[in-house]
Amino acid sequence: MDLEKRFIASVSAASKQIGDDGAVIGSTVYSNDAFIEGTHFKRAWMTPRQIAYKAFAVNISDAVAMNAVPRYALLAIGIPSSFTAGEADALAAGFVEASAAFGCELIGGDTVKSERLIISLTIVSETRRPLRRSGIKRGDLLAFTGSVGKAKRELQYLLAGRRAHAQSHYVRPRLRREFIADAAPYLRAGMDISDGIYTDLQRLADLNRTGFSFFRPLGKSAGCSGEEYEMLVAFPPRMRKRVEYLARKHRTPLTVFARAARTRYKNPCKSHHF
Amino acid sequence: MDLEKRFIASVSAASKQIGDDGAVIGSTVYSNDAFIEGTHFKRAWMTPRQIAYKAFAVNISDAVAMNAVPRYALLAIGIPSSFTAGEADALAAGFVEASAAFGCELIGGDTVKSERLIISLTIVSETRRPLRRSGIKRGDLLAFTGSVGKAKRELQYLLAGRRAHAQSHYVRPRLRREFIADAAPYLRAGMDISDGIYTDLQRLADLNRTGFSFFRPLGKSAGCSGEEYEMLVAFPPRMRKRVEYLARKHRTPLTVFARAARTRYKNPCKSHHF
Repeated sequence: MDLEKRFIASVSAASKQIGDDGAVIGSTVYSNDAFIEGTHFKRAWMTPRQIAYKAFAVNISDAVAMNAVPRYALLAIGIPSSFTAGEADALAAGFVEASAAFGCELIGGDTVKSERLIISLTIVSETRRPLRRSGIKRGDLLAFTGSVGKAKRELQYLLAGRRAHAQSHYVRPRLRREFIADAAPYLRAGMDISDGIYTDLQRLADLNRTGFSFFRPLGKSAGCSGEEYEMLVAFPPRMRKRVEYLARKHRTPLTVFARAARTRYKNPCKSHHF
Repeated sequence: MDLEKRFIASVSAASKQIGDDGAVIGSTVYSNDAFIEGTHFKRAWMTPRQIAYKAFAVNISDAVAMNAVPRYALLAIGIPSSFTAGEADALAAGFVEASAAFGCELIGGDTVKSERLIISLTIVSETRRPLRRSGIKRGDLLAFTGSVGKAKRELQYLLAGRRAHAQSHYVRPRLRREFIADAAPYLRAGMDISDGIYTDLQRLADLNRTGFSFFRPLGKSAGCSGEEYEMLVAFPPRMRKRVEYLARKHRTPLTVFARAARTRYKNPCKSHHF
């Protein structure tokens, strides 16, 4: 067991909430993600403004995955002293832009000196129908939105020393807010694909004590591609037509690829960080 | 203007909430503090369990400063891969201990790899009467709880290569929950002393457009001592007896040291991080 898993297991023993993309208290959802230079990104890959925007979008993705509407954000940020004033301004502009784009007000936080750029965002969102990771029944269909695998190709491109494309999904993840909001009543479970679909399926398998029977192989390259921020959803077969109709309505590609089954699931991917 | 101030100014332009120890939305207070190895502490100074406990306490201090009761915590943590399994367990144990001690449930967060130990906590607390930093009127009295200056001496001790005392206020900040809860109706403003009383007075001066007339000099050593986590409060002279009575009742030393006055305030301290 790696250190992070070990830590989470120790802390989770004291809480019932940990496990979903966000914690649900009444109709409020709290989610929190850290985005750390050297672990999640390199500074050469994106402009400070793009980094800020992406960090915000990635956090909003957790709220979307819970079928919640983001309201407020708290930002803890560690800024390296090597940043120029212009870079600090660009970083701030990225957060302000994302805050407006997602209708999520920045209400506070903490700004400190740090050797590496560190961004930790907490999103407070509201939902009347939380979409959880649990609830999958045998026979339910599994599907993902969009296409998976692009983020991995983009990452290889970045690791080869190039800069990210301003319009790429890597820089500007495409969130599926409208589709999820409309489809939520027909879905049994959902989460966003942040660590690669195979790794995220492991979470669903553990939580729901189920395996999956695949209709077609995803391939290791696409299946182990992290940071897709597409949605992974489960629904009963009788809802398939309805869910597919709503996907078309919102111009959201939807691929049904597996069924929850009495098999043992094995994740073929290695650790997801570069 | 340093980078952090510049960043805060850029982001704050888009929000009305930033400025207090926490953001108040209805009766809910949201506060968020980052605690970063190399900026706020060195690992040699404290055990992992002490570091976790202190990080939690420092965040609870923000809620106490707003006269709010902590309910939920979200933890984003970056764990260095040099940590042993035992150290990760000790870290987890510190958070679980603090969570129980402060009655504040850990409901979620994010755990990632990082070069340095990074702890960012978001506290969700409830208040019926938020104690803000604004609201000070000319003539109001300024007071601090406990004694200030100890944290700086402790820091010098640590910088000299020694380890922190398990019972010191540096390791276990003494929060003034009961006193603040009882005194809040009689206080005009309040905040916790995290960056040194002189630096925190600068914030009150800017926000309230006031200066201070000192009854006695605090001395640069005590006045520039950060991480005290004692409370800095303001109240009208007619409330003095009542506030002093409540301080005695809760065995909280209280020193009235200044009056809000039409003078120009100048902070004699340098940047607070070591």
